[in-house]
Amino acid sequence: MKKIAVLTSGGDAPGMNAAIRAVVRKGIFEGLDVFGVFNGYQGLIEGKIERLDAGSVGDIIQKGGTMLHSSRCPEFKTPEGRAEGVRQLSERGIEGLIVIGGDGSYRGAQALSKEGFPCVGVPGTIDNDINGTDYTLGFDTALNTVIDAIDKIRDTATSHERTFIIEVMGRDAGDLALWAGVAGGAESILIPERLHDIGEIITRLRQGTGRGKKHSILIVAEGVMSGQDLAAKLKDAADIETRVSVLGHIQRGGSPTGRDRVLASKFGARAVELLLEGRAGVAVGMRNHAVIDYPLTEVFSRREGMEDGLYELSKELSI
Amino acid sequence: MKKIAVLTSGGDAPGMNAAIRAVVRKGIFEGLDVFGVFNGYQGLIEGKIERLDAGSVGDIIQKGGTMLHSSRCPEFKTPEGRAEGVRQLSERGIEGLIVIGGDGSYRGAQALSKEGFPCVGVPGTIDNDINGTDYTLGFDTALNTVIDAIDKIRDTATSHERTFIIEVMGRDAGDLALWAGVAGGAESILIPERLHDIGEIITRLRQGTGRGKKHSILIVAEGVMSGQDLAAKLKDAADIETRVSVLGHIQRGGSPTGRDRVLASKFGARAVELLLEGRAGVAVGMRNHAVIDYPLTEVFSRREGMEDGLYELSKELSI
Amino acid sequence: MKKIAVLTSGGDAPGMNAAIRAVVRKGIFEGLDVFGVFNGYQGLIEGKIERLDAGSVGDIIQKGGTMLHSSRCPEFKTPEGRAEGVRQLSERGIEGLIVIGGDGSYRGAQALSKEGFPCVGVPGTIDNDINGTDYTLGFDTALNTVIDAIDKIRDTATSHERTFIIEVMGRDAGDLALWAGVAGGAESILIPERLHDIGEIITRLRQGTGRGKKHSILIVAEGVMSGQDLAAKLKDAADIETRVSVLGHIQRGGSPTGRDRVLASKFGARAVELLLEGRAGVAVGMRNHAVIDYPLTEVFSRREGMEDGLYELSKELSI
Amino acid sequence: MKKIAVLTSGGDAPGMNAAIRAVVRKGIFEGLDVFGVFNGYQGLIEGKIERLDAGSVGDIIQKGGTMLHSSRCPEFKTPEGRAEGVRQLSERGIEGLIVIGGDGSYRGAQALSKEGFPCVGVPGTIDNDINGTDYTLGFDTALNTVIDAIDKIRDTATSHERTFIIEVMGRDAGDLALWAGVAGGAESILIPERLHDIGEIITRLRQGTGRGKKHSILIVAEGVMSGQDLAAKLKDAADIETRVSVLGHIQRGGSPTGRDRVLASKFGARAVELLLEGRAGVAVGMRNHAVIDYPLTEVFSRREGMEDGLYELSKELSI
Repeated sequence: MKKIAVLTSGGDAPGMNAAIRAVVRKGIFEGLDVFGVFNGYQGLIEGKIERLDAGSVGDIIQKGGTMLHSSRCPEFKTPEGRAEGVRQLSERGIEGLIVIGGDGSYRGAQALSKEGFPCVGVPGTIDNDINGTDYTLGFDTALNTVIDAIDKIRDTATSHERTFIIEVMGRDAGDLALWAGVAGGAESILIPERLHDIGEIITRLRQGTGRGKKHSILIVAEGVMSGQDLAAKLKDAADIETRVSVLGHIQRGGSPTGRDRVLASKFGARAVELLLEGRAGVAVGMRNHAVIDYPLTEVFSRREGMEDGLYELSKELSI
Repeated sequence: MKKIAVLTSGGDAPGMNAAIRAVVRKGIFEGLDVFGVFNGYQGLIEGKIERLDAGSVGDIIQKGGTMLHSSRCPEFKTPEGRAEGVRQLSERGIEGLIVIGGDGSYRGAQALSKEGFPCVGVPGTIDNDINGTDYTLGFDTALNTVIDAIDKIRDTATSHERTFIIEVMGRDAGDLALWAGVAGGAESILIPERLHDIGEIITRLRQGTGRGKKHSILIVAEGVMSGQDLAAKLKDAADIETRVSVLGHIQRGGSPTGRDRVLASKFGARAVELLLEGRAGVAVGMRNHAVIDYPLTEVFSRREGMEDGLYELSKELSI
Repeated sequence: MKKIAVLTSGGDAPGMNAAIRAVVRKGIFEGLDVFGVFNGYQGLIEGKIERLDAGSVGDIIQKGGTMLHSSRCPEFKTPEGRAEGVRQLSERGIEGLIVIGGDGSYRGAQALSKEGFPCVGVPGTIDNDINGTDYTLGFDTALNTVIDAIDKIRDTATSHERTFIIEVMGRDAGDLALWAGVAGGAESILIPERLHDIGEIITRLRQGTGRGKKHSILIVAEGVMSGQDLAAKLKDAADIETRVSVLGHIQRGGSPTGRDRVLASKFGARAVELLLEGRAGVAVGMRNHAVIDYPLTEVFSRREGMEDGLYELSKELSI
Repeated sequence: MKKIAVLTSGGDAPGMNAAIRAVVRKGIFEGLDVFGVFNGYQGLIEGKIERLDAGSVGDIIQKGGTMLHSSRCPEFKTPEGRAEGVRQLSERGIEGLIVIGGDGSYRGAQALSKEGFPCVGVPGTIDNDINGTDYTLGFDTALNTVIDAIDKIRDTATSHERTFIIEVMGRDAGDLALWAGVAGGAESILIPERLHDIGEIITRLRQGTGRGKKHSILIVAEGVMSGQDLAAKLKDAADIETRVSVLGHIQRGGSPTGRDRVLASKFGARAVELLLEGRAGVAVGMRNHAVIDYPLTEVFSRREGMEDGLYELSKELSI
């Protein structure tokens, strides 16, 4: 293998640039030519492919977003779309592809690998919801963005003795809400992995008030319900007044944390090694404090249950 | 005058704690006893008044919110409510009151002063919308919070080549939106002080696209319309897809910037001097790079037009 | 066991407050009375011990430093000193002690446990250098503080096309230097665990210049040599001009990151459980992505070698 | 005038990129061709001059440092050096030059203007020490960097009950030390504009201890003495133990604050207007809350005394 390519796909996540840099630098270190595919699978089909040298990824390790851009590409779900992508790569002599993205992005990589073009996946999504790895790029940065917002909102919650609802990202996975809620000292945390009883939330709020607590923070993952819906329920059921803050897209951006940069560096470099070792159709990941790899097919099986302990702990510490 | 009190009222703003600290420390330096009134005018009526010593305001200069808390108090708009407030103060031998807050808070201070109890106002609101002063406490911190959010959102806007609408605070005043928009390099800025033509915004967006711009940021002050409404208009009028981010209450919190802390220190100390000089019914402010004072009544007249130059400049620089 | 106490000892680290909060809240949740010992072992001997309720640890999860303060205490190394400490605890009916600190602090806990007073250790040090745990509280925050400094210095290094040496903390352990160096994209990283050849560093700098690199960042852990000494060596050996920045004590402070807060919460809560389970003379830690516990004696054996891979990777990626 | 150029010179300062962007965008808005000179006056002599379009300054408003780089250039102090610089500009049809930098950089602009080549200065230095303007680009960002460091160091100072000395930049001007000291709640502030009596500092420290203060922060501008020298004096004169932190080059970097970005935008745009109005040999500045311009020669006269009030206030508030 003499030439490889890298692309980013799906929602952008902090650390993607650091991973791109690692792929390019490690590839060059190993004597490869490394190409960047711009605009994800869509750009692959359109042939938006450029050679990257060591300097072209200088000064990007600290940047949010992805210098290769990203986009959705329904066409790549078809065999014809993928065939065109492979043609674009082969025409340039590229023999392996590294895909940085979430599980949706992995499907393309898996299909390509199955069809004979070697791909390796690198987990990049703030949701931390990729099966098989303890950790995805961007989660740590998003976590710190959310707790920075919680810290700010707590200032005003305290000053006005109010209850705030903060809606954070997470359609299917509550990791961001749960970690941020624990780190932000939230009084209640609602995540998609658990059933929520509005009555219990109200009881907790009232117990807090009974103990002299004059403000409260509730975190709700968007996959449970919207912040506005939760506010309406609390108002209807118990006449509790709340303010709602929807954090939105700020959660996706920002300079990656140290941890995201280091793991991106490890992941990107390991992905290059895997291609060189002839391993295709696998993803890199973090398990038990070590970089591992595993078949992409594992990703698409059901995600393992989340950490029970942390959810229970959040309740014990927010008394 | 041997005893004075300080309270915060209205929406909290970063720098209020630094101003409280300055009032307390300067008062003690001048040989006064200084009291804190908790929960604004409501707490004043309820007698939530405690003496503060130099140590009680240690380690607060860097904190957002207000250690004295704040609340709304319709009762204080009545002569009876104010009479009870004065009784609470007089009963403790307190002869002067410093009110940190926005123009709504100033009305109470003005009424009290007129009725014979000396008050001095300190401008504290992130909106920068108090007539007579170039600057209000909290504006600089809120500005930096907003541009931090814009910087983050630009990461994702660039990566996905999208147009984002960011809704910021400001019902009547567009200062925050305008400064943040210029500082964040926004393509269009909508503020309450100007009429906006949806057609012009669309033209600008299309010109940008024509020049190869692949993403755009639009800032809209809440007083103009909601971000969602703007998105709907762009969609209806020109089929332009946008994403909306409502920054919400994070804009009120956070550790104050250096500038907010220094000005809070100057304002708080000057307010104490004014009470000692027998000047009542005035507010401190910043004009022409100097701390000034002026009658509270000036605040309630119409606010002077905003800086024309900056709005025009924002258009010239976002080509 | 009905009453327990908690103290912090040694150099302060971000996350200590979050751990104190977790001990107090978890203890109360389990029906215990929890006491705080102020000023570390010195305060223990002096009886600076106060009961903490749930509210006394409110609003501290986000704060750097330690609300219990810390100090050195040579006296506690003597049996007499420790006997006095135990007397102070027993006199209040306290039957277990949680010590948050580094390996020096663990020696006191180990001695106490051996002498019959149950202690549990919680790893708190920015150096990440405690044997038996993959992770210590404060490391993640310090890492982000250092990379924030590197990012800033890179701005000026680039603008002036200069080589900068940044000296970071770490007498015996290079984790902070290594992680920060990788995350900051440093050209060379000098850590105590490796021999360094000034000739190789010079060669790398010159190769970089040869490839058109106009600025460089070198990270040196204080345990290797001072930044000034490294600058002198580069000047003497190859007439290379550098600027030196010694980051110093800013590395110890700051609001803890999300990760430090969450792990502090887990560690603190687990420490309480261990006391309740009758486990003494152990420390909590993180291994393989799980909270574990192990005998304090393991800490004092030689630390396992550091991660080889990351050091090699740092060289491959900084080409 | 159809073509103009812009360069940055002297120490880099946050906001320089925002000013470059404003020059380029405003110039293009006015129908000009705008050129960037790389590497300051040195690059001017060497002809490192490139045309910049609107896109070439996209995505730089938020970046520290200067994309045009900077360097020292003794040769430009000679008439021959300047003649070569003018030749390089004239050869490209460039008729005006905007110089962003400190007072040293202004000397070149002043000499060129006198010799017939129109120049306009834009004040860019973190020291805030340019005569004739209340404000220089970079000061506000540096101020916030310093107070962020003070806030961090205070965490550890409090935890260990120690006295810290923080050395900040400022050879001749104490603005940064003074503002940061007030904003950081420092107990003593030493600036070049004032004589300092070590005895008074000791007295203040002891008074603080007498009142129960257990930690202190002293700020010293490098122009007064080094932090180490101050530590030695306190040790010698009164056996006071201190820790020293030298903030160094982190003070020059970082993403510019909102204020620095907005003022940079105003300054850069106004500089273009001045060239178009045929005004040469002037600098832009901020006075009385308005953008002004004044002859470069004024800069080289003695700087006006600094704000007395703030220094006195710092003493009153740090009781």
